[in-house]
Amino acid sequence: MLRIIFLLSLLFALSNASVQDFCVANLKRAETPAGYPCIRPIHVKAKDFVFSLGTPGNTTNIISAAVTPGFSAQFPGLNGLGLSTARLDLAPKGVIPMHTHPGASEVLFVLDGYITAGFVSSANSVYVQTLKPGQVMVFPQGLLHFQINAGKSAAAAFVTFSSASPGLQILDFALFANSLPTELVSATTFLDPALVKKLKGVLGGTG
Amino acid sequence: MLRIIFLLSLLFALSNASVQDFCVANLKRAETPAGYPCIRPIHVKAKDFVFSLGTPGNTTNIISAAVTPGFSAQFPGLNGLGLSTARLDLAPKGVIPMHTHPGASEVLFVLDGYITAGFVSSANSVYVQTLKPGQVMVFPQGLLHFQINAGKSAAAAFVTFSSASPGLQILDFALFANSLPTELVSATTFLDPALVKKLKGVLGGTG
Amino acid sequence: MLRIIFLLSLLFALSNASVQDFCVANLKRAETPAGYPCIRPIHVKAKDFVFSLGTPGNTTNIISAAVTPGFSAQFPGLNGLGLSTARLDLAPKGVIPMHTHPGASEVLFVLDGYITAGFVSSANSVYVQTLKPGQVMVFPQGLLHFQINAGKSAAAAFVTFSSASPGLQILDFALFANSLPTELVSATTFLDPALVKKLKGVLGGTG
Amino acid sequence: MLRIIFLLSLLFALSNASVQDFCVANLKRAETPAGYPCIRPIHVKAKDFVFSLGTPGNTTNIISAAVTPGFSAQFPGLNGLGLSTARLDLAPKGVIPMHTHPGASEVLFVLDGYITAGFVSSANSVYVQTLKPGQVMVFPQGLLHFQINAGKSAAAAFVTFSSASPGLQILDFALFANSLPTELVSATTFLDPALVKKLKGVLGGTG
Amino acid sequence: MLRIIFLLSLLFALSNASVQDFCVANLKRAETPAGYPCIRPIHVKAKDFVFSLGTPGNTTNIISAAVTPGFSAQFPGLNGLGLSTARLDLAPKGVIPMHTHPGASEVLFVLDGYITAGFVSSANSVYVQTLKPGQVMVFPQGLLHFQINAGKSAAAAFVTFSSASPGLQILDFALFANSLPTELVSATTFLDPALVKKLKGVLGGTG
Amino acid sequence: MLRIIFLLSLLFALSNASVQDFCVANLKRAETPAGYPCIRPIHVKAKDFVFSLGTPGNTTNIISAAVTPGFSAQFPGLNGLGLSTARLDLAPKGVIPMHTHPGASEVLFVLDGYITAGFVSSANSVYVQTLKPGQVMVFPQGLLHFQINAGKSAAAAFVTFSSASPGLQILDFALFANSLPTELVSATTFLDPALVKKLKGVLGGTG
Repeated sequence: MLRIIFLLSLLFALSNASVQDFCVANLKRAETPAGYPCIRPIHVKAKDFVFSLGTPGNTTNIISAAVTPGFSAQFPGLNGLGLSTARLDLAPKGVIPMHTHPGASEVLFVLDGYITAGFVSSANSVYVQTLKPGQVMVFPQGLLHFQINAGKSAAAAFVTFSSASPGLQILDFALFANSLPTELVSATTFLDPALVKKLKGVLGGTG
Repeated sequence: MLRIIFLLSLLFALSNASVQDFCVANLKRAETPAGYPCIRPIHVKAKDFVFSLGTPGNTTNIISAAVTPGFSAQFPGLNGLGLSTARLDLAPKGVIPMHTHPGASEVLFVLDGYITAGFVSSANSVYVQTLKPGQVMVFPQGLLHFQINAGKSAAAAFVTFSSASPGLQILDFALFANSLPTELVSATTFLDPALVKKLKGVLGGTG
Repeated sequence: MLRIIFLLSLLFALSNASVQDFCVANLKRAETPAGYPCIRPIHVKAKDFVFSLGTPGNTTNIISAAVTPGFSAQFPGLNGLGLSTARLDLAPKGVIPMHTHPGASEVLFVLDGYITAGFVSSANSVYVQTLKPGQVMVFPQGLLHFQINAGKSAAAAFVTFSSASPGLQILDFALFANSLPTELVSATTFLDPALVKKLKGVLGGTG
Repeated sequence: MLRIIFLLSLLFALSNASVQDFCVANLKRAETPAGYPCIRPIHVKAKDFVFSLGTPGNTTNIISAAVTPGFSAQFPGLNGLGLSTARLDLAPKGVIPMHTHPGASEVLFVLDGYITAGFVSSANSVYVQTLKPGQVMVFPQGLLHFQINAGKSAAAAFVTFSSASPGLQILDFALFANSLPTELVSATTFLDPALVKKLKGVLGGTG
Repeated sequence: MLRIIFLLSLLFALSNASVQDFCVANLKRAETPAGYPCIRPIHVKAKDFVFSLGTPGNTTNIISAAVTPGFSAQFPGLNGLGLSTARLDLAPKGVIPMHTHPGASEVLFVLDGYITAGFVSSANSVYVQTLKPGQVMVFPQGLLHFQINAGKSAAAAFVTFSSASPGLQILDFALFANSLPTELVSATTFLDPALVKKLKGVLGGTG
Repeated sequence: MLRIIFLLSLLFALSNASVQDFCVANLKRAETPAGYPCIRPIHVKAKDFVFSLGTPGNTTNIISAAVTPGFSAQFPGLNGLGLSTARLDLAPKGVIPMHTHPGASEVLFVLDGYITAGFVSSANSVYVQTLKPGQVMVFPQGLLHFQINAGKSAAAAFVTFSSASPGLQILDFALFANSLPTELVSATTFLDPALVKKLKGVLGGTG
């Protein structure tokens, strides 16, 4: 009995250092440059560290594809740990259009099907590979890249990013699905204004 | 024609900044604290950014499990990008024993089967969950954690780490499979010296 | 007089940049991944940057040792500065049991007595040394390590960590002093369930 | 029409990841070690990313020079982005006195006039150059450096720092324009106490 | 005389710590993820810390604009200091086309003329401003942005990046000026294959 | 026997990930911005992680004090671990003159005697305390600070820095013990040229 008392006091002594092993996001509080403030450790549950990406996203859309994010905002246990996750689903002919993650590198693990993926470097070199299940590809931070279904059946992938908040900038949306004036889009992309206007029309942009 | 010449000279002008988008590891050179030196960009191939984790590891061993690493040393394209990968395979009753990754947090995505996974915090709290395919769990950096097959069939998972060189310290090997003297192991773990000697015998340790 | 007015206005002009040299922790506010929010500079006092580790910890316990932490939670001036401190005391036969700091490397400076200290690497190599007063040893981040009194008198050490919140995970407590089920502990450590239960009993664990 | 609906739902799906591309400072909230908390993205305006350094600072002072800071506190859009800015103006004979930026390296671009700038390294080596408009000089983090008008007309420079909060410690002010006791200043600088007192008098210091 | 000897020995004692204040790039050696290896301090000259961006780039090209980089490869003194520089020149109607810097945020200081600059966020919001001389704009890391001459005379700007190797990916070149197959470009951008082929023709791409 | 074979193959399988737990400096190789290249793990010995600061430095000099560094260059095991060490010795009336560490924060632990220590912030505030044995003080990165023997007997301290290469810039040496021209020193410090010349004479400077 005495031993247990000694030990418990020791345990208390050693563990009251109030260290931060993790920082489960309090999504109701304002973010900081390093992520969300933490909820108090006493309120943290095992399930805060678990997220489900088991359900395929809805690919009934124009790109026949879906991205299901598991970033801090969806998966608060990731906050501050320098990692985040997502699931890609590509129906036959599905495409994850040309995009970047401004704040993170990415690794993609193919779960099902065949995926042709590629990126372009600052030196304008092209790195494209067709991947099968179990293959992994890494996309360096901030570079334009894409994934496309290379087979006849649905494809899926699990992706991880080197930041809890990697960002996602889809090229076509950035150019055509907002209020960026047609003349600026045209001038900075060399695309014909009429084409820009047409694509803005298709993608819901204005200006 | 003149246009193309203008453009090519522009392209040259803009791209000769010799920037570093990635740093594919030159594994023959000495590491630095930030990773391996880079091979020259001209020698980089698309396949340097691809690695295969599609083949289950050999689980015919005492833990009925296998860890197949895809760290910088196996997957040189990861070098400097702050990420690495691995595949876990767990036969029925398979166990990835209690271990830490000293230099990285981890996300685990269950590919097949059921896995009970957990970690213990600095505050000595326990976070355990049983995961099914498609579920993701995050393990904060440096904390003791484990994975165990919770089903009757083989289980597998794809894991990613927040460093290209996360480290892997398996508790039993650290204690019993090297030359750390029995008296030091016993004194620092409160395990009986006879038991330590026995486990050293089983695990191939000395001293 | 005119000079002084010029100078004071200059001083004001130059110093109103509101820069952050330090960030003394406001321990009443929620932590962020980068540490505690700062108290306002006007409330910062010189003593916020001072902490006392001059009093030996109470070593009248089962390990005949004590760890006195000086982390952000005890020493708010450290917040955000990437360092923290602690004092170790080891009575004769005292032991700081096998443990890790998940978030920091450590340097230990021996103040009094003789200390045998060691760590085990990811490659399962053992690095052990017996240190005398004035000697320093470094323990790389996240690796299992220990300190043990190697002399006949009390020993003490001052330690510093490469993070204001290094964490502290004591192996025996992580395994035996919480609710982690005996069957999981046994399965992931290869220790006999009966032994696990016994150690749980001694260390106050359940399950 | 259906296409647009598909696309808009896709856009919604892809963009609801709530990522953090930037973190415009909420200056009313307490800072954290990583900077100020962010204002909500919906309140961010284009002008938050713009700051004006077009107006020369007032150089009618004893140093015939002015530093106009554009740090987070003045230019909230910089918060969390690892950069800050300032403008230097030097009337003829103007001097930016010996100073350091404790938390950042600096690049200086000469806008007008001639500037002699220099820094001293830890190894006590001196690096001085006289710069003309269009020349850039880099000052490594934390080292003592200065800028002095080397021509007969006004000079100006735009500077950038590798941190949103670089700090600015002006040597003479640190030594003579506060309450640091004369005996401590004298003992730690080898300057005669009478001189220290005199300089304190000129610069408005006490003690 | 004795004093000087004492002092010199002291100086020697204090300065032999061989610290690294800077790391001027040895461009002949392989890069590492943290930058180039350093040349030996004894070979470092003051001019290694100076670079000239005073000469306007040649804007006689299809974009009527030029980017003159001052990254590590051109300005070795920046290596390891977390900053780099460039100069932009825009003749009337000149455009720096839509581009990203995958590894850095950017601040732009307008030297001459009027520049309309903007960026698009991950949330697809548009931030555009027209800047006059002396105004500064910040572009968060990795986001698509552009600069366009908004006046009738030449415009110029000095820019700084938050990394010694920020990267530069120009959208049109990434899409049309390399060997990325037309079908992949078309599929991932929704641009018509014929248009892609035409733009590839103009920009010198193949495939 | 079979078990051992299984286990050894497992051990091999698990440990061949070639991770980097530490990076003992190869001081013969050129530094990188992240530190020295590593020696091969097979050549690393336990003593590489140990350094001795037990011998007081020679205080028979004009400042009656000594700094004994234990940075990467003296203590190669620290390389890449984000920490370094030093010992201060102060004879009666000894002074560690006003100085900065451009690249690190510092914690100081008083071993013997009484030390008055202080620093000045960017906002020109003064933080001074007199410390006794066992007390710790933290000095934020890059700020001017000093230590002075406040008692009648010798004092000593153990210090740790938040970088393996913190730098050390001693104010008087930076100003007076090199070739920085008297006119530049005088102009940037407001000290009389005659005084600057005199101090240069005492401290061995030229110019």
